[in-house]
Amino acid sequence: MRVRRKPWATEELAQNPRVIQDPAAHRGHWQEVFDVKAPLYLEIGCGKGRFLIQTAQKEPDKNFLGMERDETVAATAARHLPEGVTNLRLLHANAMNVTDYFAPGEISRIYLNFSDPWPKKKWEKRRLTYRDFLVQYAQLLTPDGAIFFKTDNPILFESSLNEFCAMDWRLSAITFDLHHSPWNEENIQTEYEEKFSAKGQKIFRLEARKR
Amino acid sequence: MRVRRKPWATEELAQNPRVIQDPAAHRGHWQEVFDVKAPLYLEIGCGKGRFLIQTAQKEPDKNFLGMERDETVAATAARHLPEGVTNLRLLHANAMNVTDYFAPGEISRIYLNFSDPWPKKKWEKRRLTYRDFLVQYAQLLTPDGAIFFKTDNPILFESSLNEFCAMDWRLSAITFDLHHSPWNEENIQTEYEEKFSAKGQKIFRLEARKR
Repeated sequence: MRVRRKPWATEELAQNPRVIQDPAAHRGHWQEVFDVKAPLYLEIGCGKGRFLIQTAQKEPDKNFLGMERDETVAATAARHLPEGVTNLRLLHANAMNVTDYFAPGEISRIYLNFSDPWPKKKWEKRRLTYRDFLVQYAQLLTPDGAIFFKTDNPILFESSLNEFCAMDWRLSAITFDLHHSPWNEENIQTEYEEKFSAKGQKIFRLEARKR
Repeated sequence: MRVRRKPWATEELAQNPRVIQDPAAHRGHWQEVFDVKAPLYLEIGCGKGRFLIQTAQKEPDKNFLGMERDETVAATAARHLPEGVTNLRLLHANAMNVTDYFAPGEISRIYLNFSDPWPKKKWEKRRLTYRDFLVQYAQLLTPDGAIFFKTDNPILFESSLNEFCAMDWRLSAITFDLHHSPWNEENIQTEYEEKFSAKGQKIFRLEARKR
């Protein structure tokens, strides 16, 4: 998500105690930034955080990290984090070097929600489901860890299917129309998802696990 | 494909030397019905046969079998088989018990082209990519054998992805728009495909191999 840069954003990110300042410094020790030890779920590209806040509220027995590369968006998420949500922290960071931030087996689930589709073929290496990213995710996930991926973009979804299959991940719960699928019941919508599905856009979704 | 029953069909199927009468009798000995020994490719639901005829002409070093359950459609395919195509035979048979017709490892490739989508959930077991069929295909395919599957129906394609993944097949060359994909160059269109893609319908396609 790209938005106009807001002057207050830098300070918000620097001052907010629930924004983690130097992610690489916590590699292998993420449980220490939370009140309670619990399986760690990471959203890469958390936007303004609505999905992750609601998910964290729904699953108090998990710890959640939201990673967002855009400073103003990350700051907006930080500013709107409800007081009561104690199992959620935010990072202003880029997915590019995610293995610098997390040790092998440190993450139990990765959410990729409406990632930038980078729709042109020449940009495919930038997609967050490109094989170079999948190799990194495989490292940081627990053995039974999973990626939960959803998008409204058919080009991204098609390419993701091919990438996951090429890298030999196990896929399940694949749907081309999440909101009319068995997985809708437990679905928590992102801001983007609500907006675009209201216009009739169908949502693709899958789960991927390491073999 | 369902068409009005034609009175000449029964006789055409009984008389045409390139229609195999009792498929189960050839189980394990299919090479004997061809002039030359070669890898055996099977199309399940070959319709009027255009795809398979063109494919057989393009690949003279393979042997081809077209299976069609509808009597009149199978007879139409038989009647229009060009003289020169010597590496192609037809069966009027149902996919339901395909392992009765073929021995383990006897088939190198299965084509499923625009199979009946059976779009309602209650019919899913009838779909030719339902897991019970995949178990049978796995038996009759060679170790490096493959299923080449295409359809214009998103419900069938979505369900097929889930079935192949659930049964742990390796998928590749997945596309949601075959005619604008790298696999279009070697694509041979079926009658149905030409008609529906002309109306703007996109064609889904994948390859599946046993693990």
